[in-house]
Amino acid sequence: MSGNSQKQPNRIALLTSGGDAPGMNAAIRATTLYALHHGIEVIGFKHGYNGLIHNEWMALDEPVVREIIGSGGTILKSARCEEFKSPAGMQQAADNLKALDIDALVVIGGDGSFIGLTKFKQFYPGQTIGIPGTIDNDIDGTDHTIGFATAVDTAVNAIDKIRDTADAFERIFLVEVMGRKSGFLALNVGIACAAEHIITFENFSNPGIELQHIASKIHRIKKSRGQCSYLIVSAENLYPGGANQLASDLADYASIECIPCVLGYIQRGGDPVAKDRILATHMGAFAVKQLLAGHTDVMIGIDGQHCLQVPLASSTKHYKEVNASLLAIQEDLQDLL
Amino acid sequence: MSGNSQKQPNRIALLTSGGDAPGMNAAIRATTLYALHHGIEVIGFKHGYNGLIHNEWMALDEPVVREIIGSGGTILKSARCEEFKSPAGMQQAADNLKALDIDALVVIGGDGSFIGLTKFKQFYPGQTIGIPGTIDNDIDGTDHTIGFATAVDTAVNAIDKIRDTADAFERIFLVEVMGRKSGFLALNVGIACAAEHIITFENFSNPGIELQHIASKIHRIKKSRGQCSYLIVSAENLYPGGANQLASDLADYASIECIPCVLGYIQRGGDPVAKDRILATHMGAFAVKQLLAGHTDVMIGIDGQHCLQVPLASSTKHYKEVNASLLAIQEDLQDLL
Amino acid sequence: MSGNSQKQPNRIALLTSGGDAPGMNAAIRATTLYALHHGIEVIGFKHGYNGLIHNEWMALDEPVVREIIGSGGTILKSARCEEFKSPAGMQQAADNLKALDIDALVVIGGDGSFIGLTKFKQFYPGQTIGIPGTIDNDIDGTDHTIGFATAVDTAVNAIDKIRDTADAFERIFLVEVMGRKSGFLALNVGIACAAEHIITFENFSNPGIELQHIASKIHRIKKSRGQCSYLIVSAENLYPGGANQLASDLADYASIECIPCVLGYIQRGGDPVAKDRILATHMGAFAVKQLLAGHTDVMIGIDGQHCLQVPLASSTKHYKEVNASLLAIQEDLQDLL
Amino acid sequence: MSGNSQKQPNRIALLTSGGDAPGMNAAIRATTLYALHHGIEVIGFKHGYNGLIHNEWMALDEPVVREIIGSGGTILKSARCEEFKSPAGMQQAADNLKALDIDALVVIGGDGSFIGLTKFKQFYPGQTIGIPGTIDNDIDGTDHTIGFATAVDTAVNAIDKIRDTADAFERIFLVEVMGRKSGFLALNVGIACAAEHIITFENFSNPGIELQHIASKIHRIKKSRGQCSYLIVSAENLYPGGANQLASDLADYASIECIPCVLGYIQRGGDPVAKDRILATHMGAFAVKQLLAGHTDVMIGIDGQHCLQVPLASSTKHYKEVNASLLAIQEDLQDLL
Repeated sequence: MSGNSQKQPNRIALLTSGGDAPGMNAAIRATTLYALHHGIEVIGFKHGYNGLIHNEWMALDEPVVREIIGSGGTILKSARCEEFKSPAGMQQAADNLKALDIDALVVIGGDGSFIGLTKFKQFYPGQTIGIPGTIDNDIDGTDHTIGFATAVDTAVNAIDKIRDTADAFERIFLVEVMGRKSGFLALNVGIACAAEHIITFENFSNPGIELQHIASKIHRIKKSRGQCSYLIVSAENLYPGGANQLASDLADYASIECIPCVLGYIQRGGDPVAKDRILATHMGAFAVKQLLAGHTDVMIGIDGQHCLQVPLASSTKHYKEVNASLLAIQEDLQDLL
Repeated sequence: MSGNSQKQPNRIALLTSGGDAPGMNAAIRATTLYALHHGIEVIGFKHGYNGLIHNEWMALDEPVVREIIGSGGTILKSARCEEFKSPAGMQQAADNLKALDIDALVVIGGDGSFIGLTKFKQFYPGQTIGIPGTIDNDIDGTDHTIGFATAVDTAVNAIDKIRDTADAFERIFLVEVMGRKSGFLALNVGIACAAEHIITFENFSNPGIELQHIASKIHRIKKSRGQCSYLIVSAENLYPGGANQLASDLADYASIECIPCVLGYIQRGGDPVAKDRILATHMGAFAVKQLLAGHTDVMIGIDGQHCLQVPLASSTKHYKEVNASLLAIQEDLQDLL
Repeated sequence: MSGNSQKQPNRIALLTSGGDAPGMNAAIRATTLYALHHGIEVIGFKHGYNGLIHNEWMALDEPVVREIIGSGGTILKSARCEEFKSPAGMQQAADNLKALDIDALVVIGGDGSFIGLTKFKQFYPGQTIGIPGTIDNDIDGTDHTIGFATAVDTAVNAIDKIRDTADAFERIFLVEVMGRKSGFLALNVGIACAAEHIITFENFSNPGIELQHIASKIHRIKKSRGQCSYLIVSAENLYPGGANQLASDLADYASIECIPCVLGYIQRGGDPVAKDRILATHMGAFAVKQLLAGHTDVMIGIDGQHCLQVPLASSTKHYKEVNASLLAIQEDLQDLL
Repeated sequence: MSGNSQKQPNRIALLTSGGDAPGMNAAIRATTLYALHHGIEVIGFKHGYNGLIHNEWMALDEPVVREIIGSGGTILKSARCEEFKSPAGMQQAADNLKALDIDALVVIGGDGSFIGLTKFKQFYPGQTIGIPGTIDNDIDGTDHTIGFATAVDTAVNAIDKIRDTADAFERIFLVEVMGRKSGFLALNVGIACAAEHIITFENFSNPGIELQHIASKIHRIKKSRGQCSYLIVSAENLYPGGANQLASDLADYASIECIPCVLGYIQRGGDPVAKDRILATHMGAFAVKQLLAGHTDVMIGIDGQHCLQVPLASSTKHYKEVNASLLAIQEDLQDLL
């Protein structure tokens, strides 16, 4: 839960953790500049929680962050960190923060990073705050995470190209997008690409039913439209064996030939689109305001046009479902085809 | 005000009016497909209200709209229409709709188009519905209009290039973006480009004060940063004479040399980004749902993640202000520089 | 060999065959418009040689091609065609051309298409001409093929995004690009992405040596640079089992962990870049000039800034090697790392 | 003229001068890495010739240039320099080079920069070499200059967006592109955008004739096509008063309404496309080879696929004309409309 401490922080630390997401640099920039604006010093730990444990850091000032708003990746680097899961690792991290007189720690990352940060409260007495940065948009308590909008556009641009070939050859393509355990990317990308079929966690029951469903739809469309392109967008980690297996099963069980494409890592990088730059700027500045107001153990979220804070632990407690209204519209449109 | 009529429409008409906006085609597609899904026939009038008066139309079916979700412009063409401002023009339009047995008219456009549509109720007894499509985002009752997200990205991508030259030469650039009488484009583009200065309707008092403000900030920054690039983003229709005059005045009154750039019409076209495709799909399908529910004289809006309807007349009654929190953050960041 | 016939063609046919390539539409447009300019009628067969055999065609005139210069894919669709490999298929195709009074056949495609077209001379007495369209650039007799420039940019843009993640995590990525049996894409993409290592047909000896080579380079670089990102770009169809197997072998034999990415079909589609639009326009117009001059059985090529014609059969006779000077530079730069 | 000196340079200097061009950073990188590969030290002067006179420089090594191949602008900054036109300025520059033991100076820039470098031979005894970097492609002795390909694509992407609006409104747009005193950008951009009319230095006689020519073509097209979009692409510095004046004159003298757009500075920046990255890498490495071979007073050029050297003075002596064959094709296509 958030609470109020008495005094303004003098020095804070930032780090980026987990999968990189476009806009993390914009969040580093905004947090840094806004803190400086309020007379707070800022340092950045490198390589996620590893840097916290091994005391790798750099000072963050205006020249360092001046030109990074539009760059993908993260100037602080990122990493997964097994050591931070152990009490010894957390203690070492807390000791380093204390030695550097760090009054608050801001972590830009996803749910794994926030689970770690929540536990770290037992070792570190300073303020902690999370800024949600992940392309998967799978963090509860915020409409959007930093990086999601860019990843959607990246995937859509890629699939628009695949559609050209699908149209030219009048063939079926099956494209697997990222998203870890959630369907935000698949649903949004699929709608924006006018996918004839979207497979996401919310509408998937089991492999056999899905196979049958796809097959009957394709046969129906071939009758009504004649030969034409057909695009299936699928979330990863859903159909056992992924897109390649699904394509193989469609061939075996329904004599349907489709070309599987796994979009892969292109979805994680790239210059952030305007929306992610603005969201990151908004969240970074808002995070500093919360520190100034004495809040701790919170995550910054966006609700419509407004930033808010939620208890950090709540952000990882519930599965966030995709927009039900959009999903229903997609299924209605699919029925028509 | 919205109300309920008794029966479902059998045939509806669409048109696009006013300045074109990326995503209009996606809205045409979604409205058409969703209507077809419910057994409603769809036709499209061409050239905005002109087509309504001169009876230029085409049937809209699945093959016509199949590949347009990602195309800029509008397959129905657009235009301004003086004739529609006269009772004679409106009567002719209503007669044409009646002759074609059109139960409802859906207009995708901006505030001028909606003012016309509101008046048209006196002549046309069918249902009317507006879908907000304009890059300016200056329609009240909706967080976003179709086309705004794309226009922001287009302007940001253009200014990112200008920044390269500004950095290489360490010079001052003054970029004027569109927006008609509102500052949404200027504020969002400016934040995303890390503009050192943004001039928008909400923070502009008068030319003299603005000149002095810019000059003092530039002199301060030159002292603190040394020579460096400096970017001013300005809304159009604000400083008298526009960017060229402002650049000239900065030279005359403050001996500050800056290069004016008017981004112009590139902001209106282009393939819609994913967000505009999704928003247009959402709004188009939602509009058909409202027609089915018997609503009329409403505009579709988006509030956070959810579509809603508002009385059509209310959408053009009030000036919609930019996000005050974002503006305040921008001004704090500017102060720091 | 090319020769002169006596009279100007009255009616010609176009088709696109083999893998689609960005710029095919621009070639269709230019050939059509230039032919029309000289009073020649134009029709387009659909689905490659299949349309020729099954008599599927459409008239090509100015409105049909007006807006296609910048569209990926091909409005004439494409396909592979087994039937065209048989004498019966070829005879049917020739009969259809005769029945339609087609004086010349222009085929936009790759080497498989040109081998077919060369054989087709035995059945068809009209003029034949090939325009090289393939992203692989593996056609002899021309510096560049239509689609190559776009595919290089597409792959480079994708890998730039992957580099962001590689930099953020300081990890090794292994990206497989297309190219069929040639290394043009791999070399050009690798240089443009500043790949630390490029595996192409010209520098590959055998899997064991390649493995050893990569491993020793990576170990050397880790010593000199410390932890950093490292990018390997590989041609497809080269290392047995492709990028996934190579990654697995690097783990097994050298304990090097790298992430394999297969870019796949995104490289085939997309709006053509300016260079491909201009090349296609140049070649299309030049092809018509050759027809007017009575040439037949030739392929259009580009040599520096100038179009030329080469005997069609020669275009598929020799393996075209990548630019040796660029390859040598790349290897020198790699040595330095 | 080029000649041979006896020994290999030990230390060289780079600078970028004149208008920035995408790919300058790639040229800095390649020259630096290739020199390092041969055991040569490299420094970079900042702000063009100004840095040479005022002794502003930085060491260039592998970490400095590691990530710059894809960045627009120039890490060495650029500038025009009046001081370098005076003997005193040149002498000071030469003294600085001598004091730093610089054996060779490599200048990446355009014709103004090369005229300066040619004169500088009287003051500086070391080797000099020019690498052509300008978006205008107006340097003789090379098919292409670094930055040209990117600028063409940037302008084409911008105009594709304008075409959307032109199509939606069926209106005439007049777009002015850069190019200084040459028509390479106008011709290549115009062809790639399927411009209905291109105004370039090679086909322009005088304002009155041009006006009449445009007007009669537009009237003819309106008759044949009906209302439709119409795009004129014009080189800058050609019609007196530029696009705005031409639009005004078309209105006054021919009652033709068209919308003028000046693309402006977006054409100078942006991440370089693959072609410019490869060209810059090729030229940078080749420049070092020429230094090693003892050549001096030369410019690097590209002829088809191969780099070559030409006497530096010759590169600025003659006006380079656009590809006559492309221009003729464009005019034939225009006649058809």
